[in-house]
Amino acid sequence: MCDSCGCDDEQKTRTIELNQSLLKANEEAAADNRKRFDQRGILAINLISSPGSGKTTLLEKTIELMKDDISIAVLEGDIETDLDAERIRAKGAPAVQLTTGGACHLESALVSKGFHKLEHETGGGEINILFIENVGNLVCPSFFDLGEHIRVVLISVPEGDDKALKYPKALRTADLFIITKSDLMPYFDFDINKIKKDALALNPKLKVLVTSAKTGDGMGEWIEFLSIEASDSI
Amino acid sequence: MCDSCGCDDEQKTRTIELNQSLLKANEEAAADNRKRFDQRGILAINLISSPGSGKTTLLEKTIELMKDDISIAVLEGDIETDLDAERIRAKGAPAVQLTTGGACHLESALVSKGFHKLEHETGGGEINILFIENVGNLVCPSFFDLGEHIRVVLISVPEGDDKALKYPKALRTADLFIITKSDLMPYFDFDINKIKKDALALNPKLKVLVTSAKTGDGMGEWIEFLSIEASDSI
Repeated sequence: MCDSCGCDDEQKTRTIELNQSLLKANEEAAADNRKRFDQRGILAINLISSPGSGKTTLLEKTIELMKDDISIAVLEGDIETDLDAERIRAKGAPAVQLTTGGACHLESALVSKGFHKLEHETGGGEINILFIENVGNLVCPSFFDLGEHIRVVLISVPEGDDKALKYPKALRTADLFIITKSDLMPYFDFDINKIKKDALALNPKLKVLVTSAKTGDGMGEWIEFLSIEASDSI
Repeated sequence: MCDSCGCDDEQKTRTIELNQSLLKANEEAAADNRKRFDQRGILAINLISSPGSGKTTLLEKTIELMKDDISIAVLEGDIETDLDAERIRAKGAPAVQLTTGGACHLESALVSKGFHKLEHETGGGEINILFIENVGNLVCPSFFDLGEHIRVVLISVPEGDDKALKYPKALRTADLFIITKSDLMPYFDFDINKIKKDALALNPKLKVLVTSAKTGDGMGEWIEFLSIEASDSI
């Protein structure tokens, strides 16, 4: 979080107090979101990764593979542009773009507004899984509960096998860790056992999947995971 | 910046005031840093990118190629671990690790402390170029002047050609934009003209380079750029 500074002790104390107050407000809004999702029988999944790790591509493929069986909707978080929501709609799933206007992460209040808009646009129709694609950032989104049931962190092969250790908060707060773009393994010195070991040392309960949206590698396991979790939530 | 929230108007006002105060404190410390760098004839370069875009690899290659002619030192920003400083030292350049302990970006006060340590460790020896490798994050570091003379933003081919448009603040505040990992172009649907056009629309003064630390593509232009800038600064 943005709380280190070149400021004096009084400013530091005020910053800490204010951050705690903002986090508390966010947690309360997250609890409200989760309650709404539960009442509607919706499984909410928060996707966190760096820019370009493949969140939107994973969602595109997931919609293609599941759309006959499961009703998927997406809240697309970005700083600017609505490019990603357009990509999702092109696959036939309803999507609402959440643009933060500079902010580096999504917060629960914005998710709540987006979900309200989504419900309006879909006429209150059935949603089994709601994906919330966070802003591309492996740091700040980890601090903010959005009311999701499952938090997924993605790291792609080109980013390097040292990234679990270097971004521990993301792994510590995740339920599922997906190593994406596995088709690129031949072109990188990427030790999959090392990154898995690092991730599990940070969070022993973490489930780990290895996928390639391009070749389909691991997509069966991902779809199976979603199907089980969605049926549990209904 | 972390300034969107689910909070009330009073909290919002306090957040804005406090952010402005923190940014002002950072700017003052940045001006002090720049003055110190100028007095020592040091060219300071702030590298900003997502995790895994190739900042450390670019620095490793740069040190290899320039170490006979130019004295390079590095401040390595990370949330946790000192893996990157160790990589730099292995190439024969002095490096100090700055760990933010959770914070998503470097600030000037931490850079000042790191530079002081670097000067102590190098016994006040000559430094021509000081690289400051920021925390892997394409959002928050853009808001914080560290006292650098040149800001470089890196986006790698695997991240996708839509990332300039989606992270405009980084491009708007940069002097140089490096598209890294160009050797991976054959494996991605990456339109280099599109991302260049997007970046230049955001910032018409931006210089753009395309590099691959692996094949050496574009490294000559990068080294030439550094040599000219470093000689100008002395």
